[in-house]
Amino acid sequence: MKSMLHQQSFFRLVSPELSELEAVILRELEKYDPTLVEAAMHLMKAGGKRLRPVMVLLSGLACGDGSVSLNHHYLAMAVEILHTATLIHDDIIDASATRRGRPTVNHKWGLRTSVLTGDFLLARSCYYISLIEKTRLNTIFSQMVMDMCNGEMSQLERRYRATISYEQYLDQVRSKTALLMAIGCQGAAIISGAAAEQEQALYTYGHDLGIAFQIMDDILDFTVSDSELGKSARNDLVQGQVTLPTWYALQDSPHADELRALIEKRFDGEGEIERGIQIVLDSGALARCEQEARNYVNKACAALQGLAETPARSALVDLAEFAIQRKH
Amino acid sequence: MKSMLHQQSFFRLVSPELSELEAVILRELEKYDPTLVEAAMHLMKAGGKRLRPVMVLLSGLACGDGSVSLNHHYLAMAVEILHTATLIHDDIIDASATRRGRPTVNHKWGLRTSVLTGDFLLARSCYYISLIEKTRLNTIFSQMVMDMCNGEMSQLERRYRATISYEQYLDQVRSKTALLMAIGCQGAAIISGAAAEQEQALYTYGHDLGIAFQIMDDILDFTVSDSELGKSARNDLVQGQVTLPTWYALQDSPHADELRALIEKRFDGEGEIERGIQIVLDSGALARCEQEARNYVNKACAALQGLAETPARSALVDLAEFAIQRKH
Repeated sequence: MKSMLHQQSFFRLVSPELSELEAVILRELEKYDPTLVEAAMHLMKAGGKRLRPVMVLLSGLACGDGSVSLNHHYLAMAVEILHTATLIHDDIIDASATRRGRPTVNHKWGLRTSVLTGDFLLARSCYYISLIEKTRLNTIFSQMVMDMCNGEMSQLERRYRATISYEQYLDQVRSKTALLMAIGCQGAAIISGAAAEQEQALYTYGHDLGIAFQIMDDILDFTVSDSELGKSARNDLVQGQVTLPTWYALQDSPHADELRALIEKRFDGEGEIERGIQIVLDSGALARCEQEARNYVNKACAALQGLAETPARSALVDLAEFAIQRKH
Repeated sequence: MKSMLHQQSFFRLVSPELSELEAVILRELEKYDPTLVEAAMHLMKAGGKRLRPVMVLLSGLACGDGSVSLNHHYLAMAVEILHTATLIHDDIIDASATRRGRPTVNHKWGLRTSVLTGDFLLARSCYYISLIEKTRLNTIFSQMVMDMCNGEMSQLERRYRATISYEQYLDQVRSKTALLMAIGCQGAAIISGAAAEQEQALYTYGHDLGIAFQIMDDILDFTVSDSELGKSARNDLVQGQVTLPTWYALQDSPHADELRALIEKRFDGEGEIERGIQIVLDSGALARCEQEARNYVNKACAALQGLAETPARSALVDLAEFAIQRKH
C-alpha cells in the first residue's frame, strides 16, 4: 500500500515534507520517557497512509499564495498525531489485537501505557496547534476532538441496534473520519490566510472526502482479508456496528428481518455472524455503498472548483480518486 | 470536608464565582451525549475541594488590577476539568473502584466510557483555554498535559522499585499535582496582564503548594481510613509506589533492608503489606514528611511577598495553611 501510494502524483508533490514528518515528530520527543515515546511512535512507524498530512500540505499549496510554511507542518503533525491518539484509544475500546499488521499498543504494552500514550498524543496534537499561534484554530481543533469523542460515544451506544437512521450513520462517519480531514484542510487555509470561500471549499473537500473514505473503509471491512486489512476484518458487524453496507441490506434485502433479528440477538448462535455477512453481501449493498462513496468524492472535488487551477488542486482531486479506488 | 472548606476565608472571597462553576460547566455540555455528560459530571458532582479553581480565581484577584474576568473563569473551569479527566484515567490505570466516596467512572460505566470521557474532558479543558485567546497559554497548558502524562508513565515504571531518589520523587509529585496548580496560578497572572515577576511569583506559589499538597496526600494515604479518604487507603504501597513516607523509612528505619526487600518482592506473602506499613509508621517518616510539607508551604507563601497586600493575597496564604492542616 505504502509504495503504491508513494507513486501517486499527489504524494510526490509533498514527499520531501512528508518524509521528514516522522523524523521530526520523533526527534522532538527525545526528552520524554522512552517507553512512552516507543509506544507513541509504534503505530506511526508501522506505516499508515499519511493521507491526513498530505491533505493538509496540499491544501496549503492550493490556496493563499501557494506556499506552505512551518505552521502548515505543525498542523500536518497535529492531525497525524491526533489520528494516532484516537487509534490507540479505539484499540482499547474495541479490545483489538492488531492494527496495521502489528500488535496494538494496548496488546503490546497493556492498558496503562495505552491510556497514557493516547492522552500524551492528544495533548501533543494540541501543543502543535498552539505553536501556530492562531487562537481560532485552537478552538476549532479542541471542539473537533470533543465532537469526535461524542460521536464515538454515540456509536458505542448504538451497538446491536438495527434501527439506526441514515442521518445517524452519517453523524458517526463524520465524527469518526470526516471532521478531522475537514479541519485539516480548513486549518491549512486559515494558516495560509486564504479567503473565507477558499476556507469553506477546503473544509467541504475534506469533509466529503472523509465520508467517502469511511464508506470505503466500511465496505473493505466486508470484502478484504485480515492480512490485507492489517487488522481484524468483518469487525464492524461482530462489534454490533451497523455501517452503511448493513444499513442498505436492512433496507433492501429480502432477508432484512432475519438480519435485524441477528443483530439484535448479538449473533450469539453458531454461524450467525457468517449468515449476517452473507445477507449483506447478497443484498447488493456494497455496490450501492460504492456509488455513495463516488457521489461524495464528486462533491468533494466539485468544492475545489473555486480554487485556482494549480498542480496542488489537481493533486487533491487525484487523492480523492485514489481514496475510493484503494483495495485496503 | 466540603462544608468545613466553605467556611474558610479564602473560599468566601470567590464563592459566588465558585458556586456557579459546576452549573456553567454542566449547562455548556447540554448538546452532548447524555451518558458522556453524566460520566463527565459524576466526579465533579461528588464534591471535591475545588482547590484548583479557587487558586486560579484568588491568583487573578491578587495581581494585575485586582479583578477577575470571564477569562479567569475559563481557566478555572479548564483546570478543574483537566483535573477530573486525569482522575478518571488514573482510576482506569489503578483499577480503582471508589473515588470521593463514589464508584469511579470506570467502575460504574466501564472501560470504554471512561476512556472516552477522559479524552472528552481533556479536549474540553483545552477548549476553555482556547477561548481565552492567549496563544501562549495554549502552549503552556498542552505542554503541561504532556508533562503530566510523562510523569505518570515514569511513576508506573518505578513501581516496586525501592531505589527511587528524592529528586525522582519530587519529579513525580511535580507532574502529578504541582504543575497543574502552578500553571493555574501563573495562567491567572497571564490573563490579568500581570508583570513577569508577579507571574513567576504565582507560578512558584502554585508549584510549591502543589508539592506540599501532594506530600500531605501521601501522608494521609498512610494514616486515614478508606471512608475518610473516599477511596482505598494504603493504596500507594499496595501499588508498589514509593512515596515520601516510604522514602524516608527507607533512609532512616532500622528495618529499611526488610522494607526494601518487601517492596521488591511485591508484598506477595501474607501480612507483608501490613508489615511494610508498620515499618513506615514506626520509622518517624510521617513527622519528617509533615515538616517537609510545612517547608514547601512556607516557600509558597514567601513567593507571594512580591504581590501587593490584598485580601486575595491573604486568602492564598490561608489556603496554603489549610492545605496542610487538612485531615483528609
